[in-house]
Amino acid sequence: MTGRYYEEFAVGTTYEHDKRRTVTESDNQRFCDLTMNQQPLHLDAEFAAETEFGERIVNGLYTMSLAVGLSIPDTTDGTIVANLAYDDVEHPAPVYVGDTLRARTTVTDKRETSDGDRGVVTMHVEAHVGDRLVCSFDRTVLARKRPS
Amino acid sequence: MTGRYYEEFAVGTTYEHDKRRTVTESDNQRFCDLTMNQQPLHLDAEFAAETEFGERIVNGLYTMSLAVGLSIPDTTDGTIVANLAYDDVEHPAPVYVGDTLRARTTVTDKRETSDGDRGVVTMHVEAHVGDRLVCSFDRTVLARKRPS
Repeated sequence: MTGRYYEEFAVGTTYEHDKRRTVTESDNQRFCDLTMNQQPLHLDAEFAAETEFGERIVNGLYTMSLAVGLSIPDTTDGTIVANLAYDDVEHPAPVYVGDTLRARTTVTDKRETSDGDRGVVTMHVEAHVGDRLVCSFDRTVLARKRPS
Repeated sequence: MTGRYYEEFAVGTTYEHDKRRTVTESDNQRFCDLTMNQQPLHLDAEFAAETEFGERIVNGLYTMSLAVGLSIPDTTDGTIVANLAYDDVEHPAPVYVGDTLRARTTVTDKRETSDGDRGVVTMHVEAHVGDRLVCSFDRTVLARKRPS
């Protein structure tokens, strides 16, 4: 168990997640295959060359999902009941094959559930490639309390 | 090109997407691997057996991403500039291995950009397994106008 229980989250704390990932062409293709997403902007180099991006861009939901994955060890690995919501998911800049993604999470809110048995924690997650912000969102989870 | 240009979206229209997918154990495992998400709730049968779900549950971002993938042919296949945002992403019920997911999209808002060259379209997306709502969210895209 490497994640944090409700009591261990502190509003204002930022975790810079250690693990990064260089996004490969295969990652993007396999993600699109698994999710049955055939958007040519992600998969068709000739189509993408005619767009404002000039080449295939990585599926934004891969970027988001990878950012969450990178954040799990420092946040909710084994200590989550369920994800309650994601909000304001934005992709202010594209991700291209070969980009190396890193993520950080800041705890923005926490409160106990009404029965006091669990806690709701909201975190702001950002993913960067170098200095470029490529994805941001709020993640709200139902977290376990530390076993007594 | 099977998607819709800005002019072809009508507020209030619902698309019931034809393609469905039965979510396999492999889908869930590969999604977690690709996104470096090692949450035991998704990957560790013995751990999951001790939770309130009783077994591994499918990664919620896979459910969300698959719902988007299933929706692409009827919505933005080749007609999108970029995804602008996802909001209010919720997972009101779990998805288990073997569940067959289907999705529907309802257009909830549309407006031209200030320069009139493109359009912003907001859609409400729902994913169901049988009668069970397993994921819902709003998706806002920047859509191309029909070539003149």
